[in-house]
Amino acid sequence: MIEKKTTVAFQGEAGAFSEAAAFKLLGPAIKTIPCVTFEDMFTLVSQKIVDRAVVPIENSLVGSIHKNYDLLIEYETPIVNEVYLQIVHNLIGHPRAKLSQITRVFSHQVALGQCSQFFKANQKMKPCAAFDTAGSVKMILSGNDLSEAAIASANAAKTYGGKILLKSIEDHKENYTRFLLIAHPSSVKKARPLAGNRKSKTQKTSLVYHLKDQPGSLFKSLAVFALRDIDLKKIESRPILGKPWEYVFYVDILGSQNEPRIKKSLEHLAEFAESVRVLGSYPAGLTQL
Amino acid sequence: MIEKKTTVAFQGEAGAFSEAAAFKLLGPAIKTIPCVTFEDMFTLVSQKIVDRAVVPIENSLVGSIHKNYDLLIEYETPIVNEVYLQIVHNLIGHPRAKLSQITRVFSHQVALGQCSQFFKANQKMKPCAAFDTAGSVKMILSGNDLSEAAIASANAAKTYGGKILLKSIEDHKENYTRFLLIAHPSSVKKARPLAGNRKSKTQKTSLVYHLKDQPGSLFKSLAVFALRDIDLKKIESRPILGKPWEYVFYVDILGSQNEPRIKKSLEHLAEFAESVRVLGSYPAGLTQL
Repeated sequence: MIEKKTTVAFQGEAGAFSEAAAFKLLGPAIKTIPCVTFEDMFTLVSQKIVDRAVVPIENSLVGSIHKNYDLLIEYETPIVNEVYLQIVHNLIGHPRAKLSQITRVFSHQVALGQCSQFFKANQKMKPCAAFDTAGSVKMILSGNDLSEAAIASANAAKTYGGKILLKSIEDHKENYTRFLLIAHPSSVKKARPLAGNRKSKTQKTSLVYHLKDQPGSLFKSLAVFALRDIDLKKIESRPILGKPWEYVFYVDILGSQNEPRIKKSLEHLAEFAESVRVLGSYPAGLTQL
Repeated sequence: MIEKKTTVAFQGEAGAFSEAAAFKLLGPAIKTIPCVTFEDMFTLVSQKIVDRAVVPIENSLVGSIHKNYDLLIEYETPIVNEVYLQIVHNLIGHPRAKLSQITRVFSHQVALGQCSQFFKANQKMKPCAAFDTAGSVKMILSGNDLSEAAIASANAAKTYGGKILLKSIEDHKENYTRFLLIAHPSSVKKARPLAGNRKSKTQKTSLVYHLKDQPGSLFKSLAVFALRDIDLKKIESRPILGKPWEYVFYVDILGSQNEPRIKKSLEHLAEFAESVRVLGSYPAGLTQL
């Protein structure tokens, strides 16, 4: 009997942090599918070409990734799980390279920026901006120049056979990215609200709603949760472009949309919000922060 | 009589979007000072080496820049004004270059990503990641290769004498960055809450507060504003790293901290919040969204 492996799309090259998030969520026995853009992942899931996709949604240093909130709304692919991944940057070289040889270090601009103290302390090494963290490892290993290194995940070093010359060279250790796992709506069984990581019993529900800008309207919208003792885990306002006085709110609450009190709160919210969209209920990830 | 020009620090190279924001806020008769990092700007302001600095705080596509919220708290340099700048990406070449010649296009990774439709439609042009938008213009103009172009602001083209080959090649026109103007505390006159752009009569106050995670605590904190009919313009929660169940909230309200009802609301908030920090009161910028 041949078992079909679960296929999981991620954005970036093999060895990317997003791929590591997929392995952390679903274990090593999956087939990961690299995508060039975030949109490609959503298309693959909505056309059932892959089973799942991992979507970075916020980072502890950089904030929320609005583009992916937009795609979650556009594609109607529910969130079925989440995971927090610590972003650890490593200096990766050729298997035969020595640290003292390195003069040029390639990586994504954001990763280079997050290792600024390292570059201050090692002025001999010149930071060189490249498209991607994992892609930088692939690139330097495809050449023979032992003075070239890259900054990327341990996953990238393993994927391309690079050597970790220095571990964890990032300025701030508290660098976490939260990833959401999305699926095709038909694969989410209504009768089993706890699908996904069953180790976690606490469910989280993500929603997006839209209010007319009236004094107190946000307060009123939060009352629907507070009056039912529902805990908020995240709130973020975003102005609606082209509609100067209207806002969208991203809210995470504790509880599943199948629980009566959550259902009631969402019905209450819909009474006065311009729109309410539930992005999914899923087991709350351990932040380990 | 020699008038001293107002000095304004910004992050990036001459011609950067941040520099354009400084000119938009304060007019052309200022002296702009480029800085390598955000932190450098805050240091220059807090040591009174420059008069002001422009701090990008959120972008309509990318979200809030948490790093700069951290610096606003760390340096105690009050916000004295704000401005919304539309981010328009232009294809910039040598003065003698023709569009048909271009094969390589340099820019910051984020800018390249925001022009993905352009690259799909012009496959002959290869996107090349570089450190900076304005820096890419400087770089291609320092060479003699007419096939090289850069993506950057019109301000960058003007600064380095480049030619705009194509205007506004970004995927989404609704790309705005909000910049805050910061000053040394001693330069903010307490008696004149309307200092800054006097065309705008509406004041905005930005604050950061920290709550223990108890069900309903956020709701309670918003009640101090709602019960006084104070309008919220922004709210964002951010988990505190290392303190898994505590949150910081970024909130913008309409009104000046010198108004009695705002003062009362902040006193009320301080009764139960772990901490409250007012980042400044300033004229609300026109979003033009």
